[in-house]
Amino acid sequence: MKSPRILGIDPGSRITGFGVIEQKGFHNEYVSCGVIKSNLDFTLPDRLKEMYEGICEVIETYQPDHAAIENVFVAKNPNSALKLGQARGVLMLAVRQYQIDLYEYSAKVVKQAVVGYGQADKHQIQQAVRALLKLSSTPSQDAADALAVAMCCSNHLAVSHNVS
Amino acid sequence: MKSPRILGIDPGSRITGFGVIEQKGFHNEYVSCGVIKSNLDFTLPDRLKEMYEGICEVIETYQPDHAAIENVFVAKNPNSALKLGQARGVLMLAVRQYQIDLYEYSAKVVKQAVVGYGQADKHQIQQAVRALLKLSSTPSQDAADALAVAMCCSNHLAVSHNVS
Repeated sequence: MKSPRILGIDPGSRITGFGVIEQKGFHNEYVSCGVIKSNLDFTLPDRLKEMYEGICEVIETYQPDHAAIENVFVAKNPNSALKLGQARGVLMLAVRQYQIDLYEYSAKVVKQAVVGYGQADKHQIQQAVRALLKLSSTPSQDAADALAVAMCCSNHLAVSHNVS
Repeated sequence: MKSPRILGIDPGSRITGFGVIEQKGFHNEYVSCGVIKSNLDFTLPDRLKEMYEGICEVIETYQPDHAAIENVFVAKNPNSALKLGQARGVLMLAVRQYQIDLYEYSAKVVKQAVVGYGQADKHQIQQAVRALLKLSSTPSQDAADALAVAMCCSNHLAVSHNVS
Protein backbone atom coordinates (compact mmCIF):
# COMPACT_ATOMS: atom_id res chain seq x y z
CA MET A 1 0.00 0.00 0.00
CA LYS A 2 1.20 3.47 -0.91
CA SER A 3 2.25 5.52 2.14
CA PRO A 4 -0.06 8.52 2.62
CA ARG A 5 1.49 11.88 1.87
CA ILE A 6 0.60 14.88 3.98
CA LEU A 7 0.98 18.53 3.02
CA GLY A 8 1.33 21.00 5.89
CA ILE A 9 0.64 24.69 5.26
CA ASP A 10 1.70 27.64 7.40
CA PRO A 11 -0.26 30.51 5.82
CA GLY A 12 1.02 34.07 5.77
CA SER A 13 0.05 37.19 3.86
CA ARG A 14 3.64 37.61 2.61
CA ILE A 15 5.28 34.21 3.07
CA THR A 16 3.51 30.86 3.18
CA GLY A 17 5.46 27.84 4.33
CA PHE A 18 4.77 24.35 3.02
CA GLY A 19 6.06 20.97 4.09
CA VAL A 20 5.42 17.50 2.69
CA ILE A 21 5.96 14.27 4.61
CA GLU A 22 5.13 10.63 4.11
CA GLN A 23 3.50 8.67 6.88
CA LYS A 24 5.14 5.28 7.47
CA GLY A 25 3.07 3.78 10.26
CA PHE A 26 3.88 5.83 13.36
CA HIS A 27 6.95 7.23 11.66
CA ASN A 28 7.19 10.25 9.34
CA GLU A 29 9.57 10.63 6.43
CA TYR A 30 10.58 13.97 4.97
CA VAL A 31 9.68 14.63 1.33
CA SER A 32 10.04 18.36 0.76
CA CYS A 33 9.56 21.81 2.22
CA GLY A 34 9.83 25.43 1.16
CA VAL A 35 8.10 28.79 1.05
CA ILE A 36 5.84 30.64 -1.37
CA LYS A 37 6.73 34.34 -1.25
CA SER A 38 4.47 37.02 -2.62
CA ASN A 39 6.05 39.91 -4.48
CA LEU A 40 5.33 43.12 -2.58
CA ASP A 41 5.61 45.14 -5.80
CA PHE A 42 2.49 43.38 -7.08
CA THR A 43 -1.10 44.46 -6.42
CA LEU A 44 -3.06 42.50 -3.83
CA PRO A 45 -5.08 40.48 -6.42
CA ASP A 46 -1.81 39.61 -8.20
CA ARG A 47 -0.20 38.52 -4.92
CA LEU A 48 -3.19 36.31 -4.12
CA LYS A 49 -3.02 34.76 -7.59
CA GLU A 50 0.72 34.12 -7.08
CA MET A 51 0.01 32.44 -3.72
CA TYR A 52 -2.80 30.35 -5.23
CA GLU A 53 -0.68 29.23 -8.18
CA GLY A 54 2.24 28.50 -5.88
CA ILE A 55 0.27 26.10 -3.70
CA CYS A 56 -1.33 24.50 -6.80
CA GLU A 57 2.18 23.81 -8.11
CA VAL A 58 3.18 22.23 -4.78
CA ILE A 59 0.05 20.02 -4.88
CA GLU A 60 0.67 19.03 -8.52
CA THR A 61 4.32 18.20 -7.78
CA TYR A 62 3.91 16.22 -4.55
CA GLN A 63 0.36 14.85 -4.92
CA PRO A 64 -0.54 14.84 -1.20
CA ASP A 65 -3.38 12.64 0.07
CA HIS A 66 -4.16 14.89 3.04
CA ALA A 67 -3.53 18.53 3.86
CA ALA A 68 -3.38 20.41 7.15
CA ILE A 69 -3.34 24.10 7.97
CA GLU A 70 -2.82 26.03 11.15
CA ASN A 71 -6.06 27.22 12.67
CA VAL A 72 -5.05 30.79 13.26
CA PHE A 73 -5.73 32.41 16.56
CA VAL A 74 -5.45 36.13 16.13
CA ALA A 75 -5.80 38.08 19.30
CA LYS A 76 -5.06 41.68 18.58
CA ASN A 77 -4.83 43.11 15.10
CA PRO A 78 -7.93 42.94 12.84
CA ASN A 79 -6.01 44.37 9.89
CA SER A 80 -3.40 41.61 9.99
CA ALA A 81 -6.22 39.10 10.47
CA LEU A 82 -7.91 40.36 7.30
CA LYS A 83 -4.68 40.08 5.28
CA LEU A 84 -3.93 36.64 6.66
CA GLY A 85 -7.51 35.59 5.95
CA GLN A 86 -7.19 36.61 2.31
CA ALA A 87 -4.12 34.40 1.84
CA ARG A 88 -5.68 31.58 3.86
CA GLY A 89 -8.82 31.74 1.71
CA VAL A 90 -7.03 31.15 -1.59
CA LEU A 91 -4.85 28.40 -0.07
CA MET A 92 -7.88 26.53 1.27
CA LEU A 93 -9.67 26.98 -2.04
CA ALA A 94 -6.74 25.36 -3.90
CA VAL A 95 -6.68 22.36 -1.53
CA ARG A 96 -10.43 21.94 -1.91
CA GLN A 97 -10.27 22.15 -5.71
CA TYR A 98 -7.87 19.18 -5.75
CA GLN A 99 -10.39 17.32 -3.57
CA ILE A 100 -7.91 16.85 -0.75
CA ASP A 101 -9.33 16.68 2.77
CA LEU A 102 -8.17 19.62 4.85
CA TYR A 103 -7.55 19.36 8.57
CA GLU A 104 -7.08 22.31 10.92
CA TYR A 105 -4.99 22.39 14.09
CA SER A 106 -4.34 25.18 16.55
CA ALA A 107 -0.76 26.35 17.02
CA LYS A 108 -0.87 24.94 20.55
CA VAL A 109 -1.83 21.44 19.38
CA VAL A 110 0.87 21.55 16.69
CA LYS A 111 3.53 22.53 19.24
CA GLN A 112 2.39 19.83 21.64
CA ALA A 113 2.60 17.23 18.87
CA VAL A 114 6.11 18.19 17.78
CA VAL A 115 7.94 19.73 20.74
CA GLY A 116 5.90 18.27 23.58
CA TYR A 117 4.42 21.43 25.02
CA GLY A 118 2.16 24.16 23.67
CA GLN A 119 4.30 27.19 24.50
CA ALA A 120 7.33 26.22 22.38
CA ASP A 121 8.97 29.05 20.43
CA LYS A 122 9.83 29.14 16.72
CA HIS A 123 13.43 28.07 17.30
CA GLN A 124 12.38 25.03 19.32
CA ILE A 125 10.00 23.99 16.54
CA GLN A 126 12.79 24.27 13.97
CA GLN A 127 15.08 22.09 16.10
CA ALA A 128 12.38 19.50 16.84
CA VAL A 129 11.39 19.26 13.18
CA ARG A 130 15.03 18.83 12.17
CA ALA A 131 15.60 16.07 14.74
CA LEU A 132 12.33 14.19 14.17
CA LEU A 133 12.66 14.16 10.38
CA LYS A 134 16.44 13.55 10.52
CA LEU A 135 17.20 16.57 8.32
CA SER A 136 20.80 17.51 7.54
CA SER A 137 20.05 21.23 7.86
CA THR A 138 17.53 23.39 9.72
CA PRO A 139 14.54 24.50 7.62
CA SER A 140 13.43 28.15 7.66
CA GLN A 141 10.86 29.09 10.32
CA ASP A 142 7.91 29.08 7.89
CA ALA A 143 8.90 25.77 6.29
CA ALA A 144 9.52 24.23 9.74
CA ASP A 145 6.10 25.39 10.96
CA ALA A 146 4.50 23.81 7.89
CA LEU A 147 6.35 20.50 8.47
CA ALA A 148 5.21 20.64 12.12
CA VAL A 149 1.58 21.04 11.01
CA ALA A 150 2.00 18.06 8.64
CA MET A 151 3.52 15.94 11.45
CA CYS A 152 0.72 16.88 13.83
CA CYS A 153 -1.80 15.79 11.19
CA SER A 154 0.10 12.57 10.56
CA ASN A 155 0.06 11.69 14.28
CA HIS A 156 -3.67 12.29 14.51
CA LEU A 157 -4.38 10.22 11.40
CA ALA A 158 -2.17 7.38 12.68
CA VAL A 159 -4.01 7.36 16.00
CA SER A 160 -7.45 7.48 14.40
CA HIS A 161 -6.53 4.68 11.97
CA ASN A 162 -5.25 2.65 14.89
CA VAL A 163 -8.44 3.13 16.89
CA SER A 164 -10.81 2.33 14.05
CA MET B 1 -18.46 51.92 -28.48
CA LYS B 2 -19.68 49.34 -25.99
CA SER B 3 -20.69 50.85 -22.64
CA PRO B 4 -18.35 49.64 -19.90
CA ARG B 5 -19.87 47.24 -17.40
CA ILE B 6 -18.92 47.42 -13.76
CA LEU B 7 -19.27 44.68 -11.18
CA GLY B 8 -19.54 45.79 -7.55
CA ILE B 9 -18.83 43.31 -4.78
CA ASP B 10 -19.83 43.54 -1.13
CA PRO B 11 -17.87 40.67 0.42
CA GLY B 12 -19.11 38.74 3.44
CA SER B 13 -18.14 35.45 5.04
CA ARG B 14 -21.76 34.23 4.80
CA ILE B 15 -23.41 36.43 2.19
CA THR B 16 -21.67 38.28 -0.61
CA GLY B 17 -23.64 40.87 -2.53
CA PHE B 18 -23.01 41.60 -6.20
CA GLY B 19 -24.32 44.34 -8.46
CA VAL B 20 -23.74 44.99 -12.16
CA ILE B 21 -24.27 48.33 -13.86
CA GLU B 22 -23.48 49.82 -17.23
CA GLN B 23 -21.84 53.19 -17.46
CA LYS B 24 -23.46 55.51 -19.98
CA GLY B 25 -21.35 58.65 -19.79
CA PHE B 26 -22.09 60.19 -16.39
CA HIS B 27 -25.17 58.05 -16.05
CA ASN B 28 -25.45 54.47 -14.74
CA GLU B 29 -27.87 51.84 -15.92
CA TYR B 30 -28.88 48.83 -13.84
CA VAL B 31 -28.03 45.40 -15.24
CA SER B 32 -28.38 42.92 -12.37
CA CYS B 33 -27.84 42.32 -8.68
CA GLY B 34 -28.08 39.50 -6.19
CA VAL B 35 -26.33 37.61 -3.43
CA ILE B 36 -24.08 34.55 -3.17
CA LYS B 37 -24.92 32.70 0.02
CA SER B 38 -22.66 30.11 1.53
CA ASN B 39 -24.23 27.00 3.00
CA LEU B 40 -23.45 26.89 6.72
CA ASP B 41 -23.76 23.09 6.72
CA PHE B 42 -20.70 22.92 4.49
CA THR B 43 -17.10 22.87 5.70
CA LEU B 44 -15.11 26.09 5.39
CA PRO B 45 -13.16 24.95 2.28
CA ASP B 46 -16.47 23.94 0.64
CA ARG B 47 -18.03 27.31 1.49
CA LEU B 48 -15.06 29.13 0.00
CA LYS B 49 -15.30 27.02 -3.16
CA GLU B 50 -19.03 27.83 -3.36
CA MET B 51 -18.29 31.55 -3.01
CA TYR B 52 -15.53 31.37 -5.63
CA GLU B 53 -17.71 29.46 -8.11
CA GLY B 54 -20.61 31.84 -7.46
CA ILE B 55 -18.61 34.94 -8.36
CA CYS B 56 -17.08 33.15 -11.38
CA GLU B 57 -20.62 32.45 -12.61
CA VAL B 58 -21.57 36.12 -12.17
CA ILE B 59 -18.47 37.18 -14.13
CA GLU B 60 -19.17 34.63 -16.90
CA THR B 61 -22.80 35.73 -17.15
CA TYR B 62 -22.37 39.52 -17.10
CA GLN B 63 -18.83 39.90 -18.53
CA PRO B 64 -17.89 43.04 -16.59
CA ASP B 65 -15.04 45.27 -17.82
CA HIS B 66 -14.20 46.56 -14.35
CA ALA B 67 -14.77 45.34 -10.82
CA ALA B 68 -14.84 47.11 -7.48
CA ILE B 69 -14.82 45.86 -3.91
CA GLU B 70 -15.27 47.53 -0.58
CA ASN B 71 -11.97 48.16 1.16
CA VAL B 72 -12.94 46.78 4.53
CA PHE B 73 -12.17 48.69 7.65
CA VAL B 74 -12.42 46.34 10.57
CA ALA B 75 -12.03 47.99 13.89
CA LYS B 76 -12.74 45.47 16.58
CA ASN B 77 -13.00 41.77 15.95
CA PRO B 78 -9.95 39.91 14.56
CA ASN B 79 -11.91 36.68 14.22
CA SER B 80 -14.54 38.24 11.98
CA ALA B 81 -11.74 39.96 10.06
CA LEU B 82 -10.09 36.59 9.41
CA LYS B 83 -13.36 35.06 8.16
CA LEU B 84 -14.12 38.07 6.00
CA GLY B 85 -10.57 37.99 4.66
CA GLN B 86 -10.95 34.36 3.59
CA ALA B 87 -14.05 35.19 1.53
CA ARG B 88 -12.48 38.38 0.19
CA GLY B 89 -9.37 36.45 -0.87
CA VAL B 90 -11.23 33.99 -3.09
CA LEU B 91 -13.42 36.76 -4.57
CA MET B 92 -10.38 38.86 -5.50
CA LEU B 93 -8.64 35.79 -6.91
CA ALA B 94 -11.62 35.11 -9.22
CA VAL B 95 -11.68 38.71 -10.49
CA ARG B 96 -7.92 38.57 -11.12
CA GLN B 97 -8.15 35.25 -12.95
CA TYR B 98 -10.58 36.82 -15.44
CA GLN B 99 -8.04 39.62 -15.91
CA ILE B 100 -10.49 42.28 -14.77
CA ASP B 101 -8.99 45.33 -13.07
CA LEU B 102 -10.10 45.55 -9.47
CA TYR B 103 -10.66 48.86 -7.69
CA GLU B 104 -11.05 49.27 -3.95
CA TYR B 105 -13.09 51.93 -2.15
CA SER B 106 -13.66 52.53 1.53
CA ALA B 107 -17.23 52.35 2.84
CA LYS B 108 -17.08 56.08 3.53
CA VAL B 109 -16.17 56.95 -0.07
CA VAL B 110 -18.91 54.63 -1.36
CA LYS B 111 -21.51 56.30 0.88
CA GLN B 112 -20.37 59.76 -0.15
CA ALA B 113 -20.66 58.79 -3.82
CA VAL B 114 -24.17 57.38 -3.53
CA VAL B 115 -25.94 59.09 -0.63
CA GLY B 116 -23.83 62.26 -0.41
CA TYR B 117 -22.33 61.77 3.02
CA GLY B 118 -20.05 59.17 4.57
CA GLN B 119 -22.13 58.26 7.61
CA ALA B 120 -25.22 57.02 5.73
CA ASP B 121 -26.87 53.89 7.12
CA LYS B 122 -27.79 50.69 5.26
CA HIS B 123 -31.39 51.79 4.72
CA GLN B 124 -30.34 55.11 3.19
CA ILE B 125 -28.01 53.29 0.80
CA GLN B 126 -30.84 51.00 -0.29
CA GLN B 127 -33.13 53.97 -0.97
CA ALA B 128 -30.44 55.95 -2.81
CA VAL B 129 -29.51 52.97 -4.99
CA ARG B 130 -33.17 52.38 -5.83
CA ALA B 131 -33.72 56.03 -6.78
CA LEU B 132 -30.48 56.51 -8.75
CA LEU B 133 -30.88 53.33 -10.78
CA LYS B 134 -34.67 53.81 -11.15
CA LEU B 135 -35.41 50.34 -9.76
CA SER B 136 -39.01 49.22 -9.31
CA SER B 137 -38.22 47.51 -5.99
CA THR B 138 -35.65 47.90 -3.23
CA PRO B 139 -32.69 45.50 -3.45
CA SER B 140 -31.55 43.59 -0.35
CA GLN B 141 -28.92 45.31 1.82
CA ASP B 142 -26.02 43.26 0.46
CA ALA B 143 -27.07 43.66 -3.17
CA ALA B 144 -27.66 47.41 -2.64
CA ASP B 145 -24.21 47.79 -1.07
CA ALA B 146 -22.67 46.03 -4.06
CA LEU B 147 -24.54 48.28 -6.52
CA ALA B 148 -23.35 51.29 -4.49
CA VAL B 149 -19.72 50.11 -4.80
CA ALA B 150 -20.21 49.68 -8.57
CA MET B 151 -21.71 53.20 -8.86
CA CYS B 152 -18.86 54.68 -6.84
CA CYS B 153 -16.38 53.01 -9.20
CA SER B 154 -18.35 54.21 -12.24
CA ASN B 155 -18.22 57.83 -11.02
CA HIS B 156 -14.50 57.65 -10.43
CA LEU B 157 -13.84 56.11 -13.84
CA ALA B 158 -16.05 58.73 -15.55
CA VAL B 159 -14.14 61.51 -13.81
CA SER B 160 -10.74 60.04 -14.59
CA HIS B 161 -11.69 59.46 -18.26
CA ASN B 162 -12.93 63.03 -18.42
CA VAL B 163 -9.70 64.40 -16.99
CA SER B 164 -7.35 62.38 -19.16
